[in-house]
Amino acid sequence: MSGDRYITLAHGNGGRFMRALIENVFARHLANPQLDIRVDAAHLPLPPGDIMITTDGFTVQPLEFPGGDIGSLAVHGTVNDLAVAGATPVYLTLNAFIEEGLEFVQLDRLMRSMARAANECRIRVAAGDVKVLRRGEGGGLYLATTGVGVRRPGLRLGLDRICEGDTILVSGSVGDHGAAVLLAREEFGLKGDLASDAASVLPLTQAILDLPGLRFMRDPTRGGVVTVMHDIARSSGLTVRLDESATPIREPVRGVCDILGYDPLYLACEGRVVAVLSSEDASRALAAWRALPAGVDAAAIGVIGSGEQHVVLETSIGGERLLEELEDDPLPRIC
Amino acid sequence: MSGDRYITLAHGNGGRFMRALIENVFARHLANPQLDIRVDAAHLPLPPGDIMITTDGFTVQPLEFPGGDIGSLAVHGTVNDLAVAGATPVYLTLNAFIEEGLEFVQLDRLMRSMARAANECRIRVAAGDVKVLRRGEGGGLYLATTGVGVRRPGLRLGLDRICEGDTILVSGSVGDHGAAVLLAREEFGLKGDLASDAASVLPLTQAILDLPGLRFMRDPTRGGVVTVMHDIARSSGLTVRLDESATPIREPVRGVCDILGYDPLYLACEGRVVAVLSSEDASRALAAWRALPAGVDAAAIGVIGSGEQHVVLETSIGGERLLEELEDDPLPRIC
Repeated sequence: MSGDRYITLAHGNGGRFMRALIENVFARHLANPQLDIRVDAAHLPLPPGDIMITTDGFTVQPLEFPGGDIGSLAVHGTVNDLAVAGATPVYLTLNAFIEEGLEFVQLDRLMRSMARAANECRIRVAAGDVKVLRRGEGGGLYLATTGVGVRRPGLRLGLDRICEGDTILVSGSVGDHGAAVLLAREEFGLKGDLASDAASVLPLTQAILDLPGLRFMRDPTRGGVVTVMHDIARSSGLTVRLDESATPIREPVRGVCDILGYDPLYLACEGRVVAVLSSEDASRALAAWRALPAGVDAAAIGVIGSGEQHVVLETSIGGERLLEELEDDPLPRIC
Repeated sequence: MSGDRYITLAHGNGGRFMRALIENVFARHLANPQLDIRVDAAHLPLPPGDIMITTDGFTVQPLEFPGGDIGSLAVHGTVNDLAVAGATPVYLTLNAFIEEGLEFVQLDRLMRSMARAANECRIRVAAGDVKVLRRGEGGGLYLATTGVGVRRPGLRLGLDRICEGDTILVSGSVGDHGAAVLLAREEFGLKGDLASDAASVLPLTQAILDLPGLRFMRDPTRGGVVTVMHDIARSSGLTVRLDESATPIREPVRGVCDILGYDPLYLACEGRVVAVLSSEDASRALAAWRALPAGVDAAAIGVIGSGEQHVVLETSIGGERLLEELEDDPLPRIC
């Protein structure tokens, strides 16, 4: 059979080929003392604290792009959802939906990348499942991951803690992931030296977790920074004021967006944190972030103002512009 | 836009339409005190005990079939993986991969069915994520679920506990799910009154959990009963002897298999348990199962014999036949 080189339907049937696929690709790369591929459910020993859970699907296209791939992205995305909730990631479960015809060497590369990211983030794969989709019923590979972590009891973070006068920080430049994936799609016929910002934000979140004025953190993925701002405005009923000139946007990102007609404030990041803090703790947080390699470009980009539920951009030339909630999808399969 | 009737790419972009989809379909049906769609990670209060986790993908085609649909199947599949590990299910996370063009009314129906199954199984959805796939890059709807449950500390079940002389039970007729899904596919042009056995097996597993001679349980899904028998033979290095005449197979399942050339022993069940017990506790377990509505057809179907690693069928006419491990996939997207 052609199973030497490509994934076939037999790799999803529960029988011999599926066992070989799981043993030779998934378990080979993702093995750890916690992973037992012969059980239906795995026991999770956890350190003390509040148990936190998050789940995410990954459909990025292309599967590999400058700065990452769907394997590392799935780890980073799940780690980051736990991190911005104030938790330390411990375990991951993995679902793979593989389209018939995917090359083994590519799947192998992606799982090796996933394993490397998981090791770097000290998160262990505890359980997994594989399904094979018929040719034309998948997009090469989709992943779904669920992350389990532990949070210090009593830690309170949330949209409901945000107050008028609070400061909004971002940990680095915005829109890099979205722009890099866009460019990686051959259909645009553009080349550039952009790379995704995809990375774990755990060092960033842990650096500011003890500040009493920390209200809320989120990683601005799909829908970008503006979508997080709308979540804040909707929850608080207040006006979010963003400062265009203070918002870090890399020159190549700006260039690609100008050509293709996108606004970087709506593009996905995969390694940034937006944090809202009291104004006095915001400066402490900014200093803590700037001292980290991942936070050198951190900036205060806005404030929670008085006034009704709106997101307003104060433009570089001194004007004001309402930033509407995202409607049409400019970028399917961005993450 | 056509968003009134069909899922569009904008329903996956993180913006206004995605928020409406999550609020009006997913959260409307799956709401519970644990579910907060505004957080990145959810806090999971858990009763005392060992924490157990399992994960599964669901790609069944058609999305609705006699006896179930992909929504209820996802709940039952996840509940069952926890149940056969000896755990009580508590929480579920849900990933939905929706193909552009799926009808809202169907998605709504499937999520209502999922909610009903979750309520019946007393499992709560704690977190979720939605991605939209471009037309031609999905199969209508794929789901991935992760289940979290709690197990009595000290409970030991596993393939490694199986001994020569043990008895193999099955809780009901085999192959119903596989045969029902097959028939539901229009391409076969067959009609029948078959229904999937898809259901929670939790009452079955809990009824025998306290028997000291209980070694191992598994739900025979993809690859059917024979695949579980190969797992047992491989792990124990012993010969598994199945008794054909003792194995409950419904007449319509046998009929469909005869016509289409399948063996019911390799077809998926989604509401059955295979259990291995010491011979003395096997009769107690069989009595306990037969007293339950889900176990009236329970039967002792085989023994762990001496001899090398093989799976042998003792046929109705007094012969013997080796049952090979499943190779080619006869039935993609069966679960």
